[in-house]
Amino acid sequence: MVRRTGRRPGAPDTRETILVAARETFAEKGFDGATMRQIATRAGVDPALVHHYFGTKDQLFQAAVQIPLNPAEILPMVLADGIDHLGTNLVRTFLKVWDSPAGPAAAAVLRSAMSSEWTVKLLREFLVTQVLRRVVNESDLDSVEAPLRISLVATQMAGLAFMRYIIKLEPLASLPSEQVVALIAPNVQRYLTGELPSPSAIGDAAA
Amino acid sequence: MVRRTGRRPGAPDTRETILVAARETFAEKGFDGATMRQIATRAGVDPALVHHYFGTKDQLFQAAVQIPLNPAEILPMVLADGIDHLGTNLVRTFLKVWDSPAGPAAAAVLRSAMSSEWTVKLLREFLVTQVLRRVVNESDLDSVEAPLRISLVATQMAGLAFMRYIIKLEPLASLPSEQVVALIAPNVQRYLTGELPSPSAIGDAAA
Repeated sequence: MVRRTGRRPGAPDTRETILVAARETFAEKGFDGATMRQIATRAGVDPALVHHYFGTKDQLFQAAVQIPLNPAEILPMVLADGIDHLGTNLVRTFLKVWDSPAGPAAAAVLRSAMSSEWTVKLLREFLVTQVLRRVVNESDLDSVEAPLRISLVATQMAGLAFMRYIIKLEPLASLPSEQVVALIAPNVQRYLTGELPSPSAIGDAAA
Repeated sequence: MVRRTGRRPGAPDTRETILVAARETFAEKGFDGATMRQIATRAGVDPALVHHYFGTKDQLFQAAVQIPLNPAEILPMVLADGIDHLGTNLVRTFLKVWDSPAGPAAAAVLRSAMSSEWTVKLLREFLVTQVLRRVVNESDLDSVEAPLRISLVATQMAGLAFMRYIIKLEPLASLPSEQVVALIAPNVQRYLTGELPSPSAIGDAAA
């Protein structure tokens, strides 16, 4: 997906073999269940080589899913202005990535995530372990409510990318990004910090 | 995608040929630009046969895009309780379709829409001509604002389907549908009838 502009020194084939092994292992065992040793064994290389090429398990996972956005780098910026500005900062940062040269790669990830069960599983693992878990640890969101809130935010962000960048539905597709931020951010903010209906109240109303 | 349970009388191959010709013609010329006559010519059949098999151009388009949800039938129900209940009715009806036997077909449409430029174009044509245009005609939404409002709603609905039914992100994926309605509908309602920031105000703020 990402065009290689030059050959890296040291056996690009080995790097690719490790990435394939990593994708298979992460899809099979999940991020938490997979170990660097298992991935090295599957790739037929020494574990030290996996560390040498890719660093930590987080970094290897990031390379394996090919998502052109590293939550470890981006989240501190998104969270910097506190929880009340999270909606605006999140939508603004998200649009910046999609409007950058990384945009087509992001679209490719979203498209390929639809194509098979294991790519779906990798994207889910990415959301749960790289995004959701970090937000819970690094923000002031209540850790019990956070998984639900973040899954709601994920619906809005994924749908925004789909309609603006893939389907290109107008007038949304042509709006300046600051207008999109102003339109979408309040909804994201409600998911993050708004009062959400309690399950019991809903049960009563539906009964 | 939809399983044929028995052979229809009268040349199923002809039906399929017409559908293929219809998809190509709609993708090429759009819904408004395509005529039944062009489709018949491309399929190598008499226009009367196209009408005989598929009825109106609307109906042929519906069959061609294979979206298991007919806006002409569903919208009156969604709009029945007035504009203030549109968010709730829309999310509830949308979840009913996805939770019904038509759900897997809907997922297939969403997946295949990602796969090529012409399927993207067909889905966009469907949204614009079959959904957006009908809502403008049949609801009390302001016709100038409606296209933007509906494209915002489309982001939320597409993302909801993607995260709940394709990625299956928890806890969203396992929530009872009435809880999902209560969580998501207020956001949809804001897009439909809430006060939206004006472009000039945003321009000022960004300047």
